[in-house]
Amino acid sequence: MKRTFTLATLSFASFFASANAPTPKNIIYMIGDGMGPAYTSAYRYYQDDPNTAVVESTVFDSMLTGMAHTYPDDDTIVTDSAAGATALATATKSYNGAIAVDGEKQKLKTMLEIAKEKGMTTALVASSQINHATPASFAAHNEARGNYDDIANDYIDNKINGKLPVDLMLGGGTQYFIREDRNLVNEFIAAGYQYSDSLAQLEQIEQVPAIGLYAAKGLPFALDSDPERLTKMTRKALSLLEQNEKPFFVMIEGSQIDWCGHANDIACAMAEMHDFAEAIKIAKDFIAKHPDTLLVVTADHSTGGLTIGAQGQYKWQADVVKGVQATAEVIAERLMASDNMQEQWQSNSGLAYTKEREVLLTQAKQVDEEALVLAVKKLINEASFTGWTTSGHTAIDVQVFAHGMGHEQFIGSQNNVDIATKLISFINKQ
Amino acid sequence: MKRTFTLATLSFASFFASANAPTPKNIIYMIGDGMGPAYTSAYRYYQDDPNTAVVESTVFDSMLTGMAHTYPDDDTIVTDSAAGATALATATKSYNGAIAVDGEKQKLKTMLEIAKEKGMTTALVASSQINHATPASFAAHNEARGNYDDIANDYIDNKINGKLPVDLMLGGGTQYFIREDRNLVNEFIAAGYQYSDSLAQLEQIEQVPAIGLYAAKGLPFALDSDPERLTKMTRKALSLLEQNEKPFFVMIEGSQIDWCGHANDIACAMAEMHDFAEAIKIAKDFIAKHPDTLLVVTADHSTGGLTIGAQGQYKWQADVVKGVQATAEVIAERLMASDNMQEQWQSNSGLAYTKEREVLLTQAKQVDEEALVLAVKKLINEASFTGWTTSGHTAIDVQVFAHGMGHEQFIGSQNNVDIATKLISFINKQ
Repeated sequence: MKRTFTLATLSFASFFASANAPTPKNIIYMIGDGMGPAYTSAYRYYQDDPNTAVVESTVFDSMLTGMAHTYPDDDTIVTDSAAGATALATATKSYNGAIAVDGEKQKLKTMLEIAKEKGMTTALVASSQINHATPASFAAHNEARGNYDDIANDYIDNKINGKLPVDLMLGGGTQYFIREDRNLVNEFIAAGYQYSDSLAQLEQIEQVPAIGLYAAKGLPFALDSDPERLTKMTRKALSLLEQNEKPFFVMIEGSQIDWCGHANDIACAMAEMHDFAEAIKIAKDFIAKHPDTLLVVTADHSTGGLTIGAQGQYKWQADVVKGVQATAEVIAERLMASDNMQEQWQSNSGLAYTKEREVLLTQAKQVDEEALVLAVKKLINEASFTGWTTSGHTAIDVQVFAHGMGHEQFIGSQNNVDIATKLISFINKQ
Repeated sequence: MKRTFTLATLSFASFFASANAPTPKNIIYMIGDGMGPAYTSAYRYYQDDPNTAVVESTVFDSMLTGMAHTYPDDDTIVTDSAAGATALATATKSYNGAIAVDGEKQKLKTMLEIAKEKGMTTALVASSQINHATPASFAAHNEARGNYDDIANDYIDNKINGKLPVDLMLGGGTQYFIREDRNLVNEFIAAGYQYSDSLAQLEQIEQVPAIGLYAAKGLPFALDSDPERLTKMTRKALSLLEQNEKPFFVMIEGSQIDWCGHANDIACAMAEMHDFAEAIKIAKDFIAKHPDTLLVVTADHSTGGLTIGAQGQYKWQADVVKGVQATAEVIAERLMASDNMQEQWQSNSGLAYTKEREVLLTQAKQVDEEALVLAVKKLINEASFTGWTTSGHTAIDVQVFAHGMGHEQFIGSQNNVDIATKLISFINKQ
């Protein structure tokens, strides 16, 4: 009896706090795919200026509020990005692979759909194809994340009160949107959307609705291309949404932190972290101008079992990671194509071409490019004392960061679905 | 100019908030040595009751407030326990190996020493020897953590206003306290301390000052002995401090989470986590009775590069970890001594004696016991999908948990020295 009373009191207290909390007009939800706590810690040391006495804080440090439990609704404990995004978008845990459907494969209403019902402007931004698991779980429904064409179709077909679900999409994915069986881009244009296919000419998008697709699938890695392509898309999206003046919901994903983690490529991961961090700064700047906006940043899970330190040594060589100029895949390509291994290795990896490294790289090159990719990663991980335990995901809690109106709701330890519940509660009050 | 004004305003705001905050009478500071965020996440799944629909929250989940940066004051990024504890005890970062001394090997005043100056009762509790790096950094000063005898001497010689620094010590370490050259236990008795050498007769300690030493060095692992020996020492310490009625400062260390992490032994680590979690519950219960008390729990660093999930699989088998009955060292000892490998393996590991496992274990046994320890760990880590990257530490941020009066000061991302600064500020107001 006493327990019941206590629980009731607590619930009332939470309800009261939540009822009294001011409701943000706009919601910016940013998801670092695969961005477990080792990534944000590593990024602090990666971006530190060694010429100053202090270790500079990151944008993540400025807005940490709590952590979230990521386990899916099966007995695996370790989630995939589809179940993770479904939880973060719908407040319901589902099985690995699910795109906004539950264990019985029934559609789950997403916060983006609710936002659209409430008359908010809706947007998705990602460095992956825009129909990849995380953005997909906000605007589409599918029993399997791999059904990319069906998911892309949903962005036209999944009408909310007769309207298309997403007013603004920026990311990759032309191969799914311009197909032989169906040209979704033409359908978007017919529905009044501006279409953009050049990231270099992002300024040509003048208003929502609009769709920008900048790669066949995901955009090239930040380390191998534009180091701030997500930042640019974020700036453009927020500028369009600002000019639109209606309340908005936007989900912005740093998609490829996860991909670098799967590859166990630390320099690749840190470059993606940088692009994501810069994009978060743009969002914080927006809130400085529009304090009636809430920014929540989190991750769906951690990837690769990254550890800062390895091999029994008490050190991590951030300088080695900073010295790497390309992803291991691109370095291997260049080594394969070159007659001067030493020059290519030194200029791309920033590391000396020692006898030991020469032997490993030369032998790997004789096998094939895949072996060379592995050798390149092995040498960079060893030289930087970076550890990895898996090509998949891990179940460590992820961080929750919040800033702006309502951010105090995200303090403490919470389930990933709790984040969605709180955001949906704000959206429902629009 | 504008920047200066802003900074001054902010500083004033912080000062004002801190000046207005109520000052806790008692401080309970608990340090999980090596307890990175993977450990608290893993513990949630380890202690989950699979017969209920929900994943039960842990005591950690009930009091998470933030995270802390652990880097030491050198260029390694990865701290050891001595530099970590020095930062947590004195608010000054130092070099790896330092026991409450700075980079110039000058003594740093610790919060326990300040507490003693202020007339508070002081206590140290640990499952390691009580003169191990973490407790040592609160009451001793040494340029090297390995100088165990000198550190033990400090517990008598390091007088604070003519008094011994620590009123109550519970842990291990007789080999350092009862030596041929000096019998510190006799000196403590001569100084009026009760001495206890039996954990089973802990109730015989009736008041502070007292010292209880329950092992030559560290206490045996929780998994191989009393699963709640730290919990029992914590209960006893808080009961003695409660009865003493004076304001108190106590540091309680879950010392051996780190040791299991160094060994890459997941069942060992989870048993230590359980003992530490139960000890935290005792501290929370104390606060329920004495709300003028602040409890802060954190870690000095993470150990072993533990990851929940490994080998590319999206799962972690908590049931496998729960099934293991002893540390890998003890299992190997038993396998070495036994004629019935199958029976020993099955009863100790909870795992089937498959042909593959038989081959690995039998071959390792033929090499030596050390090889057998490695084989046992390999099989348990593989079967549970537990990953490790190092026998040392890693630089991932650790969590900060707080409960009771003043807990809100620990919300957000902070440096490890900031935790000490806040606690010292409370102690200075006594």
